[in-house]
Amino acid sequence: MAIRALEWRNGALHLLDQRFLPNREEWVVFHDWAGVAEAIRDMVVRGAPAIGVTAAYGMALAARAGDDLMVASAGLRASRPTAVNLFWALDRIEALRTTDASAILAEAVSIDDEDLQMNLAIGKFGAELVPLGAGILTICNTGSLATSGHGTALGIIRSAFAKDPSITVFSCETRPRQQGLRLTAWELMKDNIPFKSIADSAAASLMALGKIDLVVVGADRIACNGDSANKIGTYALAIAAKYHGIPFYVAAPSSTIDIEIADGRQIPIEERDGAEITMIEGVQVAPAGCPTWNPGFDVTPNELITAIVTEQGLFNPPFGF
Amino acid sequence: MAIRALEWRNGALHLLDQRFLPNREEWVVFHDWAGVAEAIRDMVVRGAPAIGVTAAYGMALAARAGDDLMVASAGLRASRPTAVNLFWALDRIEALRTTDASAILAEAVSIDDEDLQMNLAIGKFGAELVPLGAGILTICNTGSLATSGHGTALGIIRSAFAKDPSITVFSCETRPRQQGLRLTAWELMKDNIPFKSIADSAAASLMALGKIDLVVVGADRIACNGDSANKIGTYALAIAAKYHGIPFYVAAPSSTIDIEIADGRQIPIEERDGAEITMIEGVQVAPAGCPTWNPGFDVTPNELITAIVTEQGLFNPPFGF
Repeated sequence: MAIRALEWRNGALHLLDQRFLPNREEWVVFHDWAGVAEAIRDMVVRGAPAIGVTAAYGMALAARAGDDLMVASAGLRASRPTAVNLFWALDRIEALRTTDASAILAEAVSIDDEDLQMNLAIGKFGAELVPLGAGILTICNTGSLATSGHGTALGIIRSAFAKDPSITVFSCETRPRQQGLRLTAWELMKDNIPFKSIADSAAASLMALGKIDLVVVGADRIACNGDSANKIGTYALAIAAKYHGIPFYVAAPSSTIDIEIADGRQIPIEERDGAEITMIEGVQVAPAGCPTWNPGFDVTPNELITAIVTEQGLFNPPFGF
Repeated sequence: MAIRALEWRNGALHLLDQRFLPNREEWVVFHDWAGVAEAIRDMVVRGAPAIGVTAAYGMALAARAGDDLMVASAGLRASRPTAVNLFWALDRIEALRTTDASAILAEAVSIDDEDLQMNLAIGKFGAELVPLGAGILTICNTGSLATSGHGTALGIIRSAFAKDPSITVFSCETRPRQQGLRLTAWELMKDNIPFKSIADSAAASLMALGKIDLVVVGADRIACNGDSANKIGTYALAIAAKYHGIPFYVAAPSSTIDIEIADGRQIPIEERDGAEITMIEGVQVAPAGCPTWNPGFDVTPNELITAIVTEQGLFNPPFGF
């Protein structure tokens, strides 16, 4: 059965609390937009497409409660800065120019349904790029947990596996929050897709050993020139892929493209709490007071990207969105 | 006061148990070689030069107990496969062709003293490579904890800081065992050297931001052509440094050079237990049964190395040891 991490049910938004995966599958129910904004900020839900859909449902909750929709939208927009899908979804709701709760809910449901359809299309286009028996490297979680279902980069892996069960996935842990080790491993195990979890720092060795045929990653924001922001660590994988002559693909719905920015220098990069590095599962690992630098994302320049896979097909360099 | 992680005292070897740092400073006392071999394997002590010195003291314990020295040497040699300093130190003891306990102890003390002197020389030569106010990137722990004192790559940082307190160190966490986050951070804080701990995957972003003037790393084994094995993740840093045009230095005593192997393909790479990835501080982070690939080291090819700094000075490409 397909994994879902967010559901609108009985007039409320239900989120699978991803902070507790893989150890506990706990759903949280939200009845107001402020709780939804907090859930995005605290990463109860994460993944660029998923937080866009979640924010749209947050607006549906605000409309039903008769809240000021401009306040709700501003609050949701302030939750996380890098993924553009959040702003794209809120723009779509605002473009309705209505406070009618059922119209807003209908639009949120459309955004949700369309995201699933886009992911299925990305999977279909992307699977054609995967050679028989390929070794595929990926980072972070870009699966059903990060979207309305199927996934972007992980959607390509799912679609490729459906055609060819002999592929092998190498999944980067994705420090500091370990979305690869916790979430991608959880999804791959549920789908019985063969994989190994690796330390982020081991990816280049796999390439040198000839184990990787392609790298496929998601995106949180893509500039007009193709520069792509994604989870911290993506850029290093792209550099290593180039050094080894391995194709590097970015998979994202077109809602991830920010046509308002020319290049990656304009993408705001979220800096997160250093405790994400120094503490794990509540245990202090580093010396007390250890200073840190903890950016959540990095930007891969277009020159390192072989193609961007969207629901509309493949885009090749030079990119010009 | 200078940090020491190993000491011969009252006829026994005392090791600072590095598995408990930075939270607890606990010394363990060893009276027999088998315990020493186990301590190396279990990483009570780690760092290529330090395990060489430790093994030499292990032989002194074996000689005093009247144990079969060939059995003791074989047992110590089997403890860890990658760092060549271990074999180099045991070769030195065996070259004495004696079972005399005080002669063997004297040689172990010499190996220990010489390692400290070599590190101080490496520091002096290496510090000349560091520009004023430099940002220096390093990985793993190559400091007093990894050697007889001062350190190799971290020795260069110490010597540079003594000349110029305006440098800044960026210390990679070094998953899976986090020697950077736990041990290097601990040493840097003790010495009041300005630094930030980062996720391994964030290093390339620092380079793109212009924050890194040089990368300096240790080595566990250097082939005749300069190919250098070091902690997993080193290779990715070298590739990223090359992409950004940043100098990449390897710092190691000449005991790390293995003149018996032509290139890095012949260096055995230790594969360690996957639990190092899936569990942290005894907590299961990954889904149960999550498969892993966990190499302890990687090999940086000579073409990515700007210079190798030893106690004899700088070696530049083409390397020919």
